[in-house]
Amino acid sequence: MNDFTLHPRLEADTHQLTDLPLCQVRLMDDARFPWLILVPRRPNVSEVYELSPEDQSQLWQEATSLGQGMMDALDGDKLNLATLGNQVPQLHLHVILRRRNDAAWPAPVWGIGEPQPYTTEAFNEIREHILMLNNAFPAGPK
Amino acid sequence: MNDFTLHPRLEADTHQLTDLPLCQVRLMDDARFPWLILVPRRPNVSEVYELSPEDQSQLWQEATSLGQGMMDALDGDKLNLATLGNQVPQLHLHVILRRRNDAAWPAPVWGIGEPQPYTTEAFNEIREHILMLNNAFPAGPK
Repeated sequence: MNDFTLHPRLEADTHQLTDLPLCQVRLMDDARFPWLILVPRRPNVSEVYELSPEDQSQLWQEATSLGQGMMDALDGDKLNLATLGNQVPQLHLHVILRRRNDAAWPAPVWGIGEPQPYTTEAFNEIREHILMLNNAFPAGPK
Repeated sequence: MNDFTLHPRLEADTHQLTDLPLCQVRLMDDARFPWLILVPRRPNVSEVYELSPEDQSQLWQEATSLGQGMMDALDGDKLNLATLGNQVPQLHLHVILRRRNDAAWPAPVWGIGEPQPYTTEAFNEIREHILMLNNAFPAGPK
């Protein structure tokens, strides 16, 4: 049985975009950076190594495919991938597109300035971009 | 031909500990955090997705095995894994053991305070710990 429930802090800070075979794909509500949060739909997992080897492989594949897709489609300069979880213990992976003129460059994004929530129009636009990426790679485990 | 050379900034900031099948395993010279830097011995790679699928899989396995080993052996509270590369373009992965009483908790470690270089004694001690971890998991690709 998979009684996965999303941590309330992730629920509050992000918008659901789509589901991949393992992860919820969510968008951080901060228009300064194209910033996805991938959350494996597995209960009670904090560390990558607590996932099965198959799930670990799937997590990295989903993150890498989305990240590469974003780099190509949204004209990024660098991809940042990270799983920290010091504040929200539920395992989640940051997939962040960085640009040399963004609000934090070259520093990491965490703790820099204030989040800038998406307008409805801007959210719909990036949502469409991300969902097109999703259609561009296989939906099933490789 | 593999004409890998280490970026001078990584050379300056870290100490070589050992080689795994794919990565140089290096220790960040900052005694505040048990902090490894894994550098795939591949030339001209900045992004994870520029590695072959086999190398990507090997990278995550090496990072996860080392991270899990450190968490067990060094009594960590949370593992942080990240590849950023905004300042040093050569692909490298941070594997950082976090504790609730460390100098940056719960923030990410980057940009917090000043690095605290290891004494020779402290370096030898953590080096021995890490090399024992290395002996504890298979050296070859799984």
